[in-house]
Amino acid sequence: MDYIYLDHASTTKLDGRVLEKMLPYLKENYGNANSVHGIGRNAVKGLDEARGIVADILNADFNEIYFTSGGTEGDNFALNGFTKKRGEKNKIVISSIEHSAMLKTASELKGVEVVKIKPNSLGLVNPNDYLESIDENTYLVSLMMANNEVGSIEPIKEVCYNAHLKGANFFTDAVQAMGAMEIDVKDLGVDMLSFSAHKFNGPKGVGAVYIKNGAQIGGIITGGHQEREKRGGTSNVAGAIGLAYALKYNRETLKKDSEYITNLRNYFIDKVLSLNGNFKLNGDRENRLPNNANILFKGINGERLLYKLDIMGVCASLGAACSAGSIDPSHVLTEMGLTSIDAKSSIRFTFGKENTYEEVDKVISIIKNLIEE
Amino acid sequence: MDYIYLDHASTTKLDGRVLEKMLPYLKENYGNANSVHGIGRNAVKGLDEARGIVADILNADFNEIYFTSGGTEGDNFALNGFTKKRGEKNKIVISSIEHSAMLKTASELKGVEVVKIKPNSLGLVNPNDYLESIDENTYLVSLMMANNEVGSIEPIKEVCYNAHLKGANFFTDAVQAMGAMEIDVKDLGVDMLSFSAHKFNGPKGVGAVYIKNGAQIGGIITGGHQEREKRGGTSNVAGAIGLAYALKYNRETLKKDSEYITNLRNYFIDKVLSLNGNFKLNGDRENRLPNNANILFKGINGERLLYKLDIMGVCASLGAACSAGSIDPSHVLTEMGLTSIDAKSSIRFTFGKENTYEEVDKVISIIKNLIEE
Repeated sequence: MDYIYLDHASTTKLDGRVLEKMLPYLKENYGNANSVHGIGRNAVKGLDEARGIVADILNADFNEIYFTSGGTEGDNFALNGFTKKRGEKNKIVISSIEHSAMLKTASELKGVEVVKIKPNSLGLVNPNDYLESIDENTYLVSLMMANNEVGSIEPIKEVCYNAHLKGANFFTDAVQAMGAMEIDVKDLGVDMLSFSAHKFNGPKGVGAVYIKNGAQIGGIITGGHQEREKRGGTSNVAGAIGLAYALKYNRETLKKDSEYITNLRNYFIDKVLSLNGNFKLNGDRENRLPNNANILFKGINGERLLYKLDIMGVCASLGAACSAGSIDPSHVLTEMGLTSIDAKSSIRFTFGKENTYEEVDKVISIIKNLIEE
Repeated sequence: MDYIYLDHASTTKLDGRVLEKMLPYLKENYGNANSVHGIGRNAVKGLDEARGIVADILNADFNEIYFTSGGTEGDNFALNGFTKKRGEKNKIVISSIEHSAMLKTASELKGVEVVKIKPNSLGLVNPNDYLESIDENTYLVSLMMANNEVGSIEPIKEVCYNAHLKGANFFTDAVQAMGAMEIDVKDLGVDMLSFSAHKFNGPKGVGAVYIKNGAQIGGIITGGHQEREKRGGTSNVAGAIGLAYALKYNRETLKKDSEYITNLRNYFIDKVLSLNGNFKLNGDRENRLPNNANILFKGINGERLLYKLDIMGVCASLGAACSAGSIDPSHVLTEMGLTSIDAKSSIRFTFGKENTYEEVDKVISIIKNLIEE
């Protein structure tokens, strides 16, 4: 079956050029990057190359980049790592629309007060709300760079500034943002930032975090000397190379791709909102990731619509893939003020550079037919 | 440079047939296994296939296999996971020759007493020593299946039995053992077992744990519904498929390969011990992994010998690759009673099915020349 893939926020296809860069590390360069012999040194070269590429793109130092297994690990790393070094402080301030990797993991921290900041109806948080909640007892403040469900781009620079006013660390989950916008960690001022390769045409099973030199944070997986003792385990060199080149290739055409995806997405939004129904865009039209269109099909069961779209070969999602199987409505949409029923009537379409206007026309025609049934 | 690779305990080369099985999931089958659409379902098929293969080989149930990022994560998973559910109990009993991923991570558990059982001079622990230390307050007992440095095969079935007598969970780190011997989790009776694909010609960055149904254990990376909510994060399907097929292919020729590797290893040991020097095999000659020869070159600086071997294209190691860069002598060898100097004069050679008798002859000749200098 030929699919029309409109679920790029969930995952993306590995770039063929990236796979080519990975293959030597899946074949002849198989060494353990911790081995002190020739075969090991060839692996180290790859790991160093990958770290250097990522550091350059993010304007970080070489030793501020740590490879992980992905975005969920990055969120766990931030929460558990800063908690290990929190000293006497016992409060964290996060948004209520973070990924479940943040929300659930935060809720399990022992002896820690978790304050959650709500967004407005467009999915944007107010930095002043953070400022009111952050105090001298706060050791960690967190806000995602862009929301994974509605694509809202959050004011992380301001919230980071507010965190630092009170001596708290600031972490941002940049998993959705990394492939969609330029990111300069020094300009942002964040203490830690996390992302995952498979969101920008890299391989699955590998991510990275930026941790500012000097940040007081414990390790996530301990016991090996790898990744400056913060993330033990034999290095996945092929994965690191894949992440680095995926990011490099992404940045080379980011401006052009973003324009194309934004226009295509807007074309879709205009078309779908002009259909005969009570349909609405969730979130802000302007201040959102280029690829995201989260549509409320008022009065329609989202799960059934998604199922019918799937039968017609259209791949979209109800919300985060990581929450699939959950019978609860999207926490992001309900925090924005939608009713449970409206949240369950909303579908996320996320576009990629591979998508075409012909595909969008086809999807619109399919949706039109489905809602007329 | 043509290398002679005698460091298979550190890592192994990815089997070309395994890469072929992985490639579809690095190309067209790129879906997120948590997505509820066609592209996602193709990923689920791969993940299910991988889990089924592993479960069958280990005699586990399908839902007792959880994919991880590797062996160090597995050790962290066991320690942190069982600690989360320990209730009022506050003691663990582990061996003193565990991998540093166990030893270091255990040392950082808060409010937990860690009792370490020493091995004998051959690197073998006595189950009775465990029995004396395990009490009603013990929630976790751990012993690696085979040691990574000297290859000693530990009496885990007996220690597991002793743990269960007192109501404690039993975990075994089977990272070194998995590619070298048949493993039946039901026969062993363990509650949890961990391993890593790259030790048996699978890819790096992926491992798995067996967790017995009903075991009371918390998650290691939380917030996603993946892996029955115990290990969140977008599934690395290509990695899981790689792990599964590497294990399958390993098992198909395990008996033949083990015989060959054992004979080759013994040929090496006999040759090296017959050289003109005060050399000795660390550990038991019989009760060890087929691939392992850990040689004490008494009076010789191991680091310098290793360096010279490397210049000649011979890849071996001083101990665990994960400890490379450490200036401390091997904790395994010193726990076995070796002096620091003897531990630093010991080199681990680990063989693989790709190695030949010609290579061993060449290495022996190189060692002979080096020690005569």
